[in-house]
Amino acid sequence: MPEIRSNPVTGDWVIIATERARRPEEFTQKTQKPPLPAFAPECPFCPGNEDKTPAEQFRVPAPGGGWLVRSVPNRYAALAPEGEVERHGDGFRTFLSGVGLHEVIVETPAHHLTTALLPVGQVEHILVAYRHRLRAFYDDRRIAHVIVFKNYGEAAGTSLIHPHSQIVGMPVLPGQLRARLEEAVRHWGDKGECLYCRSLQEELHDGTRMIAENASFAAFVPYAALSPFHIWIFPKRHCAYFGDISDSEVSDLAALLREVLARLYVGLQDPDYNYVIRSLSPQEGAVRYFHWYISLIPRVTKSAGFELGTGMFINTALPERSAEFLRGVTPGA
Amino acid sequence: MPEIRSNPVTGDWVIIATERARRPEEFTQKTQKPPLPAFAPECPFCPGNEDKTPAEQFRVPAPGGGWLVRSVPNRYAALAPEGEVERHGDGFRTFLSGVGLHEVIVETPAHHLTTALLPVGQVEHILVAYRHRLRAFYDDRRIAHVIVFKNYGEAAGTSLIHPHSQIVGMPVLPGQLRARLEEAVRHWGDKGECLYCRSLQEELHDGTRMIAENASFAAFVPYAALSPFHIWIFPKRHCAYFGDISDSEVSDLAALLREVLARLYVGLQDPDYNYVIRSLSPQEGAVRYFHWYISLIPRVTKSAGFELGTGMFINTALPERSAEFLRGVTPGA
Repeated sequence: MPEIRSNPVTGDWVIIATERARRPEEFTQKTQKPPLPAFAPECPFCPGNEDKTPAEQFRVPAPGGGWLVRSVPNRYAALAPEGEVERHGDGFRTFLSGVGLHEVIVETPAHHLTTALLPVGQVEHILVAYRHRLRAFYDDRRIAHVIVFKNYGEAAGTSLIHPHSQIVGMPVLPGQLRARLEEAVRHWGDKGECLYCRSLQEELHDGTRMIAENASFAAFVPYAALSPFHIWIFPKRHCAYFGDISDSEVSDLAALLREVLARLYVGLQDPDYNYVIRSLSPQEGAVRYFHWYISLIPRVTKSAGFELGTGMFINTALPERSAEFLRGVTPGA
Repeated sequence: MPEIRSNPVTGDWVIIATERARRPEEFTQKTQKPPLPAFAPECPFCPGNEDKTPAEQFRVPAPGGGWLVRSVPNRYAALAPEGEVERHGDGFRTFLSGVGLHEVIVETPAHHLTTALLPVGQVEHILVAYRHRLRAFYDDRRIAHVIVFKNYGEAAGTSLIHPHSQIVGMPVLPGQLRARLEEAVRHWGDKGECLYCRSLQEELHDGTRMIAENASFAAFVPYAALSPFHIWIFPKRHCAYFGDISDSEVSDLAALLREVLARLYVGLQDPDYNYVIRSLSPQEGAVRYFHWYISLIPRVTKSAGFELGTGMFINTALPERSAEFLRGVTPGA
């Protein structure tokens, strides 16, 4: 009998399709990504081609000169960096001028590597860049919400090979965030507790869906995972704003994120994936009802009409078995 | 300057990325689907193979014997048809037994055709089957919500070639429907009008995003279209329940749906797509705040981390230009 599980964070239902569930091994990728050169002369993100990108906004310098991570405006930005946010309306429909910030964070000088294969120290540098740019974006008073995300591989919507993430600052609060905030406020109002802290407690206590944890972070397949190997990484310290992460938390997160990605890389043979950092703004950093976290979505299945038409997901993997499988993988050094 | 447009129906924002917008022609599919035989001996949906599917639940009979459309239980159903809906909870999380109905509607005996190439009369038969199965699903007191959808092509999440749609009846109200209902009730409470009727009026009055219309239906690219060539087909008569569609409305909808699909087929060279029928239940058929409609999503772009992390979409096509392009296509006989 399938199970329909509630996701308290989204307020939605997920069908765990036990009858047609596949074994974890069946999600292993069949086609290998082609081998890549460490340097590609035509790649705008490779060292030596810095003049092919718009003016650099931030860098983690390399000890001997050059850079380890850099952030540059996206040449194909979704929003325009100049101008004021103007709101127009005819009483029914509203539109705003599309003002916002959009940068690409180049994660390493090495064209051919992926986060799962980077040294933990390099992943720390990437997270330091995220924190720096997130804070800087929120310093712009036009910005209402900032999202950090990574698209890895074609199924995850990227065509650029060189390892990179993106950060977008927009002048509106996205509807999905508004909905989650409303759920979180309702839960806090009803129960007097943070919905996210409670979810984390339940997962740590239950244990069957845990993948890995350290002093500051825990990674697990959530009870109502939307899709196979959908993973949440939660900070153990309650905080709503990613920009408030401390240096030692950066180190712990780097270690855990890299470990989880390495387990996916080995266990599922380098699947495409997206991850996003869900965070509120610095002004909301101390609120008691929200908790920032990372959502990681391996793109091993496709969403179709059912998902588009209902917003519900059919997950053909059992969260408990997916987690057990990832725990059993040797993630490499 | 990009525009951030509000979608009053979803309550969300869409970025219309004017700066990186592509011309309508650029969404034309580059790879042709391979030619198909009219009959495939191993296909469970081809005539003569009726015993390869679970027991037929409905058919539109062919005049000389045989069938024109048939509906059969999905062999790989997401939900189990037998049993009671039991609700379990530990005070924090809830799960239900995964009881529900799931059928495949085989749209034609011809293995190789697609809706855009079917005679309008055959599209009528398909819609008659939708209406019949929707009503029958809602006769089952365990069912809270029914969704009808079609996945066409690999990018739309199907692997089965033979033309088919699906219908799923579930024992819960999906979160996305709950959210739209809430928006609709709020608008009706505030303004005393149906949000959907108003949206339709605005589109008909403006005209720049219209694709086609007839006595009972209108097809348009909505003001805040989520993705390139995203299309809504609205009934002109206010009604919240698709099952209440009359025979003459079935004829009009068949003609318009086929015309829109033919315009996409010719204009974009047979793109993959999903469509869904959003409808409430028969008990809600007369409510004044909701309006059933069809949402059609050509799968010509991929969603990535930005969409997953915000629920917002970046549309790289101007809705007005997409509509103009589709109006200019000759859809064939």
